[in-house]
Amino acid sequence: MTFVLSLDAMGGDAAPRIVIEGAVKALARGASLSYLVFGDEQHVRPLISAYPQYRHAFTLIHTDEVITNDMKTAVAIRSLRASSMRLSIEAVAKGDAAAVISAGNTGAYMALSKLLLKTFEGIDRPAIATSIPTLTGRAIVMDLGANVECTSKNLVQFAIMGHVFGQRLLKQKRPSIGLLNIGTEDMKGNLIVQEAAQTLRATPHLNFYGFVEGDDITAGTTDIVVTDGFTGNVALKTLEGTAKLIQKMLEESLRQSWRGKLGYLMAKPAFQQLRNRIDPRLYNGALFLGLQGIAVKSHGGADAVGFANAIHVAASLAADTASGQIAADLDHFLKEEV
Amino acid sequence: MTFVLSLDAMGGDAAPRIVIEGAVKALARGASLSYLVFGDEQHVRPLISAYPQYRHAFTLIHTDEVITNDMKTAVAIRSLRASSMRLSIEAVAKGDAAAVISAGNTGAYMALSKLLLKTFEGIDRPAIATSIPTLTGRAIVMDLGANVECTSKNLVQFAIMGHVFGQRLLKQKRPSIGLLNIGTEDMKGNLIVQEAAQTLRATPHLNFYGFVEGDDITAGTTDIVVTDGFTGNVALKTLEGTAKLIQKMLEESLRQSWRGKLGYLMAKPAFQQLRNRIDPRLYNGALFLGLQGIAVKSHGGADAVGFANAIHVAASLAADTASGQIAADLDHFLKEEV
Repeated sequence: MTFVLSLDAMGGDAAPRIVIEGAVKALARGASLSYLVFGDEQHVRPLISAYPQYRHAFTLIHTDEVITNDMKTAVAIRSLRASSMRLSIEAVAKGDAAAVISAGNTGAYMALSKLLLKTFEGIDRPAIATSIPTLTGRAIVMDLGANVECTSKNLVQFAIMGHVFGQRLLKQKRPSIGLLNIGTEDMKGNLIVQEAAQTLRATPHLNFYGFVEGDDITAGTTDIVVTDGFTGNVALKTLEGTAKLIQKMLEESLRQSWRGKLGYLMAKPAFQQLRNRIDPRLYNGALFLGLQGIAVKSHGGADAVGFANAIHVAASLAADTASGQIAADLDHFLKEEV
Repeated sequence: MTFVLSLDAMGGDAAPRIVIEGAVKALARGASLSYLVFGDEQHVRPLISAYPQYRHAFTLIHTDEVITNDMKTAVAIRSLRASSMRLSIEAVAKGDAAAVISAGNTGAYMALSKLLLKTFEGIDRPAIATSIPTLTGRAIVMDLGANVECTSKNLVQFAIMGHVFGQRLLKQKRPSIGLLNIGTEDMKGNLIVQEAAQTLRATPHLNFYGFVEGDDITAGTTDIVVTDGFTGNVALKTLEGTAKLIQKMLEESLRQSWRGKLGYLMAKPAFQQLRNRIDPRLYNGALFLGLQGIAVKSHGGADAVGFANAIHVAASLAADTASGQIAADLDHFLKEEV
């Protein structure tokens, strides 16, 4: 089955180049996809023409309105009615595409997605989720910044969305859910997480593990880690920063002696494997959870490999997701269990 | 000059063993120290006697009251008037010791330290600070969990404490200060960080850098990173967890092939150097900032090497700190600048 994906060609630091190159990479990997591409014809057309063997997969829709990174969300929504971002989301809302991918302004992308795709009934605010590498495999962390302040009700809803999407993304029947806190004892943390934990404990159909701490994220203690957008954003970026720090320190240590240099040459494939396992590009592609349509956010600084991975995330969700089933699952949890 | 340090012998998972062994390690490294040790004579005396060459450095004060890890703070303070933790803090309050070190119950330790040592005038709530390795050296991160919820005034006070202590710990005249947020633009984050940033920008004697993000912590973007206790705790534990993850993945990759194994053997000293650089034991010893006395918190799970490092933190602060000067510096900032 071929899925149609909608691409915001103008979002991201190196757009539209990395968008088209990423889309081509996804096709080259054998993905059965075709694209609706929204963006400035003058810039986008030549990029597509550079790949004659894939040209048939692209349908370009011209617009010269672009939402920039420093644009306020309110302005982006109100004054630009035909931005590449808005049109690409609309394609999903209209049913022309199965999912949308943008590397543009996160705030505007979230607000427009909410406006055009609508949240599922019973979900107040969508959350941003992504998967990260752990000692035992992968985990899904959310929210990563859509909701700076959260009520306990928001956190409970995130856990339910995590459960429903975790089943699909991690292929697990009852993914375990941890609530991020500064300790595992019941009285730790603030009232918001304590209340959320109480509700989640009383929801038997969820596999609620309890509180987890920062080091549990990469330990893989739970399949899903739920937190507010402030803490989640800081935690994820701290994780990325630490990975960079240690790789850098390792390089420095190896370079300091001839033994280190020789050992590096000898074990080069192993180092390459490590780099691949923690390559942030391979984890690119965050999902807006809670919307009645699939919207994937690529990192603004992603290169073509990273953007291709965001496309992969969107495509695998599109393939797996019967949107009606998600709605039914959410409905089940929101109405009967909480 | 010999400093007298006060040790809570009964705090920590493997107390009193690791406390005495850590104290001996610090002496063996050549530190000019003597110890007041508070704890159960029956358990502690034999441990000290095992090191006859250092026995003269220890003065043991017997008490059989112990604050356990699961004890509620209120109970720990009200019902135990002669706990090893309380007595060891009192020794600093009375001037018998220059600093106290405990690996015990953090909540109780913070509450007792506040009660017995008092905060500096103008500081509402003490913060927990520690130093971490970065790409460029070391950074101080605070608060790590003492204050789950913070006002913008608290954050400003943390920044001022960070400035004054950062001068001493990092030997820098004007350590740069970053406020942790989920983006660097002015309108990012919540009202609390936005207000705090506004005040800090208007404080010319502080070297305020502005907002920093999670990956800036290990990048060493600023010398000091200020945040609330919830976010700081999660960030630090995420950092520790990620460091563990990558070391583990590196080991796995190297073990998978004979080339990897050979390369490892060849470059072993480089790997050892990396391990040393990121060994969490060498960063053990968090400081309660804002108190009129030096109180250092060792990780509860620290081993003797870790506890020795916490002693080292306390000793270097005791050596460097003219408490009157700190009070004067804080006074200057709190009264004139904010």
